[in-house]
Amino acid sequence: MTSLTIPAGMPQYDDVPRFDVARVRADFPILDREVNGHPLVYLDSANTSHKPRQVLDVLHEHYALHNANVSRSVHTLGTEATEAFEGARAKVAAFVNAPSVDEVVFTKNSTEAINIVAYAFSNASLRADAPAPAAPSRETDDRFRLGPGDEIVISEMEHHSNLVPWQLLAERTGATLRWFPLTEQGRLDESGLAELVTERTKIVSLVHVSNILGTVNATSRITQRVREVGALLLLDCSQSVPHMPIDVVDLDADFIVFTGHKMCGPTGIGVLWGRGELLAAMPPVYGGGSMIETVTMARTTFAAPPARFEAGTPPIAEAVALGAAVDYLTGVGMRAIQWHEKELTAYALDALATVPGLRVFGPTVPVGRGGTISFALGDIHPHDVGQVLDSLGVQVRVGHHCAKPVCSRFGVPAMTRASFYLYTTTEEIDALVVGLEQARKVFD
Amino acid sequence: MTSLTIPAGMPQYDDVPRFDVARVRADFPILDREVNGHPLVYLDSANTSHKPRQVLDVLHEHYALHNANVSRSVHTLGTEATEAFEGARAKVAAFVNAPSVDEVVFTKNSTEAINIVAYAFSNASLRADAPAPAAPSRETDDRFRLGPGDEIVISEMEHHSNLVPWQLLAERTGATLRWFPLTEQGRLDESGLAELVTERTKIVSLVHVSNILGTVNATSRITQRVREVGALLLLDCSQSVPHMPIDVVDLDADFIVFTGHKMCGPTGIGVLWGRGELLAAMPPVYGGGSMIETVTMARTTFAAPPARFEAGTPPIAEAVALGAAVDYLTGVGMRAIQWHEKELTAYALDALATVPGLRVFGPTVPVGRGGTISFALGDIHPHDVGQVLDSLGVQVRVGHHCAKPVCSRFGVPAMTRASFYLYTTTEEIDALVVGLEQARKVFD
Repeated sequence: MTSLTIPAGMPQYDDVPRFDVARVRADFPILDREVNGHPLVYLDSANTSHKPRQVLDVLHEHYALHNANVSRSVHTLGTEATEAFEGARAKVAAFVNAPSVDEVVFTKNSTEAINIVAYAFSNASLRADAPAPAAPSRETDDRFRLGPGDEIVISEMEHHSNLVPWQLLAERTGATLRWFPLTEQGRLDESGLAELVTERTKIVSLVHVSNILGTVNATSRITQRVREVGALLLLDCSQSVPHMPIDVVDLDADFIVFTGHKMCGPTGIGVLWGRGELLAAMPPVYGGGSMIETVTMARTTFAAPPARFEAGTPPIAEAVALGAAVDYLTGVGMRAIQWHEKELTAYALDALATVPGLRVFGPTVPVGRGGTISFALGDIHPHDVGQVLDSLGVQVRVGHHCAKPVCSRFGVPAMTRASFYLYTTTEEIDALVVGLEQARKVFD
Repeated sequence: MTSLTIPAGMPQYDDVPRFDVARVRADFPILDREVNGHPLVYLDSANTSHKPRQVLDVLHEHYALHNANVSRSVHTLGTEATEAFEGARAKVAAFVNAPSVDEVVFTKNSTEAINIVAYAFSNASLRADAPAPAAPSRETDDRFRLGPGDEIVISEMEHHSNLVPWQLLAERTGATLRWFPLTEQGRLDESGLAELVTERTKIVSLVHVSNILGTVNATSRITQRVREVGALLLLDCSQSVPHMPIDVVDLDADFIVFTGHKMCGPTGIGVLWGRGELLAAMPPVYGGGSMIETVTMARTTFAAPPARFEAGTPPIAEAVALGAAVDYLTGVGMRAIQWHEKELTAYALDALATVPGLRVFGPTVPVGRGGTISFALGDIHPHDVGQVLDSLGVQVRVGHHCAKPVCSRFGVPAMTRASFYLYTTTEEIDALVVGLEQARKVFD
């Protein structure tokens, strides 16, 4: 299982970091399961990842020994819970090399993280002539003010989570939504960059790694243009933070978002990272406990970030378990995980090329792409492909993958998608290929 | 531990439902803990409750055997996860007697639930002259349109979670925020009801049971007035759903909110219940995956509730574990839990009355109140009281309890609060009283 050979055309580094995939797999209880009489072959990690016992143990231990609300109790249990929660924030900050732990806002998922930024824009754009008596949250800077004539730029490659919030923001403010088109190879078409990102642009929000095409977007040219025009840049890193080393300083974005459940952590926890001075300039979105400084019936002033954006009891145990997931991934090594997935992707692209009638959407070379491969198998409907695979224990996702515009771009209503993670093996890719051959026999 | 005597003045029902508190306590692993060399005496359940092993086991089993994303995968694991998630929704719906399972929206906490309703109002109130090209989310009904001249009514008793969202909404729309004052006994002062709730009122949002005073608000007169004037009624049931049988049909509100972590469930999960036709009339708040019907780059149409309000990967395992918490509470019996807490409250009020210089804020009789008692101990600062108690293993909350206006109303910056739940015993209340005597000795 660990004897992957480096495919031809890949760099033959001597110092490639390695880990023992069999040992990693032993950490994941669910991988012992059978599905429909076959060993589980889980190729849906872009949808959600599995959780190692190291994470589940921390989750259980938190509830069984240290459960309390955070930032509200001075008693011993409350102090223990708060230390665990804030300790997890520090781990997450270190994981993405955030300059300050206060730049890490815990959300419930990536979607909430993006919506917080989008609502901060419209909350900062309340019309000055509105008759509200006290408007403490409007003392915001011009970078967040948005109105008719201003533009928001996304791409045709976005997950709905990085598309619908901006459509709704445009609707709330009268701003215009524009987007990068895709090339036939499933990469961002940057040829119109200078015309697309202009002085009218207030924010550019792009997916870092596509959840459907696997494309890794090289963002440096776009970042440079964003800086030239004085806009802000958000990167949706939901599919990159789990799979490769991410350094927010190197990445040079203003905001990034990611989610716990795709990176060996629990559901119910996500992260908004933002540059400190930007978060400090943003008005609050949700109101409630813990995000306040002083409250009277008539007027509230707000806490500094990250608390300002964490109204109510946060996902405490989920944050603590996300900290354990970060420990786990760091222990295996993010470079090693990235390399493992590169090898798997190269292996899978080669293997899928042997299946007659199979068409890969997105990059067909293992360069500038991650371990998520969507494809069509002749004219067989993806749901039929998925059912045959499921009957053999192979779990892939079929459908629009929360990225309908990508399906429209490639002229299909749905795709079949296989996606890999640190516990994926070449044997599982072989099982996928066997299953696809089976689907061809059944439906051709 | 189970031989509670019914205090004088309480009804001597023969058919009072009972449960074995010692057996219940054995279900909660954390109750075996020691704190500062003493057995844990946890009197902070209004802040967060502990979790029985039945809930922790379901949480672990979900991740270890059935982990997958929901509503997106047709494979076996995805189907299992979706059935568990939607099964939990059905359990929660039944727990509060919701007429339809689709009326249960999973949120991350009560705070999010209230903010969703508040943002639905402002999203429905976008000015008709705004120049957005397509405005599908504005086809909403007049009940949610809010502007200058319209009024929002809350009370002086609210947790910040049911105060700040409405302040922010007033700011976004120009509507006016008004509130019920409190009586000296810590009850809602309804004497100005007819002048406070008028044809200008669009929504009344009230706490059902106060998290700081323990007051149970009888809402029938207010509900009647709300119906007369054609407004909507939201009840914050964060402190009632965990502690007494709640039937949304009987309660006759339009929305209720509650949260998992206060009712033996995990953190990271809350509930917005809304009448079906109202949820269907509400515009979306957060955009993202799973809340859509169709998506193009230019325009999105939205799914029916509850999906419309559940953008992104939901707190899946958390919902499943909340379902287990509902099973657990139902197994013990909500009437029995309510009665147990009534007895504890009566016992505690009697016991606290023996402590010289102790002043209870809120109702001093065990009628129309729940098992949350806030008090002052002479002039000793609550943080000092809390520290002495903590040194004896007694965990109470001290501070403003996310209800600063209540503290202001009673002229104190902070209070000490003891709060009870199904696992609380009279011996623990005795330990509280011993600790308070100790605090008097140290600081007097």
